Amino acid sequence: MKNAGILTIGNEILQGYTLDTNTNHISKELTLRNIEATVHLTIADNKEKIIEKVDKFLIKNYDYIFITGGLGPTHDDITRHSLKELFNCKLSFLEERHKNINKRFKKAKIPKNQSQILDIAKPLENEYGTAIGMYFKHKNSKIIVLPGVPVEMKGMLNLYFDKHSNDFKKNNSIFTLNTCGIYETKLYEKMKPLISKYDNKIYFSFLPSYSGVKLRVNIKHRSINRKSIEKELIDYLNDYVYGIDDITIEQIIFNNLKKTKKTISLAESCTGGSISKKLTGLPGISKVFTGSVIAYSNDIKNKILNVSSKLIDDYGAVSKQVAEEMAFNVKKIFKTDIGISCTGISGPTGGTVNKPVGTVFISVCYKNIFLTEKYFFKVDRQSHRKLTEHAALYMLWRMLIKIK
Amino acid sequence: MKNAGILTIGNEILQGYTLDTNTNHISKELTLRNIEATVHLTIADNKEKIIEKVDKFLIKNYDYIFITGGLGPTHDDITRHSLKELFNCKLSFLEERHKNINKRFKKAKIPKNQSQILDIAKPLENEYGTAIGMYFKHKNSKIIVLPGVPVEMKGMLNLYFDKHSNDFKKNNSIFTLNTCGIYETKLYEKMKPLISKYDNKIYFSFLPSYSGVKLRVNIKHRSINRKSIEKELIDYLNDYVYGIDDITIEQIIFNNLKKTKKTISLAESCTGGSISKKLTGLPGISKVFTGSVIAYSNDIKNKILNVSSKLIDDYGAVSKQVAEEMAFNVKKIFKTDIGISCTGISGPTGGTVNKPVGTVFISVCYKNIFLTEKYFFKVDRQSHRKLTEHAALYMLWRMLIKIK
Repeated sequence: MKNAGILTIGNEILQGYTLDTNTNHISKELTLRNIEATVHLTIADNKEKIIEKVDKFLIKNYDYIFITGGLGPTHDDITRHSLKELFNCKLSFLEERHKNINKRFKKAKIPKNQSQILDIAKPLENEYGTAIGMYFKHKNSKIIVLPGVPVEMKGMLNLYFDKHSNDFKKNNSIFTLNTCGIYETKLYEKMKPLISKYDNKIYFSFLPSYSGVKLRVNIKHRSINRKSIEKELIDYLNDYVYGIDDITIEQIIFNNLKKTKKTISLAESCTGGSISKKLTGLPGISKVFTGSVIAYSNDIKNKILNVSSKLIDDYGAVSKQVAEEMAFNVKKIFKTDIGISCTGISGPTGGTVNKPVGTVFISVCYKNIFLTEKYFFKVDRQSHRKLTEHAALYMLWRMLIKIK
Repeated sequence: MKNAGILTIGNEILQGYTLDTNTNHISKELTLRNIEATVHLTIADNKEKIIEKVDKFLIKNYDYIFITGGLGPTHDDITRHSLKELFNCKLSFLEERHKNINKRFKKAKIPKNQSQILDIAKPLENEYGTAIGMYFKHKNSKIIVLPGVPVEMKGMLNLYFDKHSNDFKKNNSIFTLNTCGIYETKLYEKMKPLISKYDNKIYFSFLPSYSGVKLRVNIKHRSINRKSIEKELIDYLNDYVYGIDDITIEQIIFNNLKKTKKTISLAESCTGGSISKKLTGLPGISKVFTGSVIAYSNDIKNKILNVSSKLIDDYGAVSKQVAEEMAFNVKKIFKTDIGISCTGISGPTGGTVNKPVGTVFISVCYKNIFLTEKYFFKVDRQSHRKLTEHAALYMLWRMLIKIK
C-alpha cells in the first residue's frame, strides 16, 4: 500500500482563523484509492520551516507528498520560493497561461507569480482562481503543490488524479454501510458474531456521528467477495442500513419519493428549519417537497397549522397528540402525501418536570398511518437539533419502506 | 509569547472519515489568549508513533502540548497507555469518579479505563461523555490530554483554562471586525489609507467567508490604544461593520430585536429554511421569532402566503414584486413587526434567459417600509443558498439600524 504525507501551510490555520478542510478531503480521496495518509502536518508561512519539513517528508520517502497553501498573490505566500530553494531550481513564468488568466478575470490585474511554477514541475490549471498548481517527482516521491482555497484545491486534485488515473484506481475492498437508529455499542454487539466469523479477513470499524453510525468494512483477504459480503451485511443489519458509501439519508429519501411519486411537507418546531434546509439542499427536490411551516409559537401552531388550542392546553405543545396533529394537518394544508412534524425542547431553558429539556416528539403521517416517536436527547441545543433532524429523516425513511 | 504544539491522534482523521475540528478550536482559543500554536500534527492510533511524536514535542520544549483523541473505551484507544510508557509511570483508577459516571449514564456499563489517568496527572472531568481528560507538567512543558469528541473536548478545554485563568488571560491587542456587504478587494482598497497610516504599528489581515469579510487587527505597537483604534475603524468603515470578534450577525440581530421589542417572521423560498435554522440556533430566540413559511412552490406562495396568482403570472415567482408581497404577507399572517422573504434560483437548473440561475430577490418589510434587493450570485447551489442567507441577514440588520 502506498503512503502519503500531507503538509498544510498557513498562519491563518495555525491561529484558528481558518478551519482546514483540505487535508480531510485529500485524505478521503486517497483512502478511496488505496493510498494511506500517515501524517497530517500544518506549519506557518515561514520559508525555513517549509524547507525543513518538506525535506523531512522527502527523507521519509513518502510515495506522495501533498502540499497545500501559500500559492496566493500576496507577500505571505511563499511556498513557491521555499520549494525553489529546497530543490535548487528556477521558477518558470508561463506567459501564455498568464495572458489567458488575465483574460478570464477581466477586471483584475493578476500578479505574475500566479503563473509561476518550478522549472522541474508540470502545471495544474485552476478552474476557479488564479494560482497555478504543480507536480513533480523527486527521487521516490511525487510532490503535488496545490492552493489553499478549497474549491480550487479540489478541482486541481481531481485533475491530478485524472492525469494519473492508472495510479489512482478506486479501491473496491473498502466500503461503508451507513446505519441509523442504532447506537454504536448496540451495533457493535450485534456485529460481534460477524466480526468473529471474519476475523483476520475483514476489518470492521465503527464511526458514530449525529447522522448515525457508519460501519466501515475493509476486506483484507482475497477469499472475500465484495458483493456477497455487502449483501450478507445488509441482510443481517436489515432496517438499520439505509445506504452505502457517500450517499446520505436525505438523498435516499428523495430517490424513493421520486420513484414512488410521493410528496412531502413539514411542520417543524424545535428544529427551526433544519430538516427543510437539509432536504432543500438537494437539487431538484421541488419535485417532491412543496414547503414547510416553522411553528415556533403555540399561536402559529394553532393559526397556521390548525392545531386546536384545546389540544395544546390538554397535552402541551410538546406531546404525541400535538406532533401527530401537526403532521396530519401540514400534509392536508400543503396537499402532500406525507407530513412530518417535530415538537420539542432543545434547551437550554424551557423544560418542565414532566417534559424536561431534551424531550422531543416526531411524527410522520401518510394517509391515516402515523409513525410517532418520543425521544429524550440529553445534549446541548445544537446537538439536540441535529439528533432530532436525523431521527426525523430516519423515521421518514422507515415509513417510506413500510408503505412502498 | 508562549507557544503550543497540538497533536491529534486518530486513524479516522488520517483516512478522511472524520474532519478534525478540535485543532481549529484549540488554536483559536490559544490565539485569543496570546499563545501561538506553531504546529498541528495528526498521527495514527499507534503506540510507537504516539511515543515518538510526543517525545519530539517535549524535546522542542513547547510551553503547551495539547493531545486529543484515543481516550475512548475500545482497543483502538491507546493514548493513555502510550503516555504511560513514555513517562514511565502508572495508571490510577479513580474509583469514586467511576461510580459517579456509572450513575450518570444509567444504562451503560462503562469500561474501567474511562476513569483511568496517569498517576502523575490531574483529572479533567467530562461534562458530556465518559472519557476522563488529564493534565500534567513535564520539564518545561504543560501537557493536556483531551478526548476527540468535539463537545467533550471543548468543555474540558474550558475547564482547563478556568483552572489556570492567570496563564490564559485574553489578549487585548488582537481583535476582529466583522464586516458584511463589501468584497475583500473593495475593503482592502478602502483600508489602504489606514494601512499606510499605521504601517508597522498595526497589522491588518482580511479573512473572506460566505458571511462577509473579517478584518483582523493586530496591534503591534504600544503607542496604539485599543479602544480608540477600534472606534476609528468602526467610524471609518461605517455600515459595513456589524460586530467585533466572535459575535455573529444573527446574534446582533437578536440582541437588537430583544432590545427594541420587535418580532420577525420569514417567508423563505430558495434558502429552504437556512435563514430560519440560523436564527433558531440562538437560545431564547422564540421571544422575537414566531415562525416561517418555506414556500417551495407557487401554489404554497399563493395559498399560504396569499401572493396572488396574477402577481406570479405577471412578474414571475422570482421577482421584486413577489418578494415584497411575500415579506409583507408573512409579517401580516404571523402578526410580527418585520417580515423577511427571499425568492430565487439556486440551480443547478431552473433558470431562464431573463432570470438565469443565480438570481435572487430578498425583501425586508417593516410597516410599509421595504428594503428589497436583487442579487446575482453565480456560484454552485450550496454557496448560493449561503450567500442569500447572509445577504438577507445583512439587509435585516441594516433595516433594524434604520428604524431604531
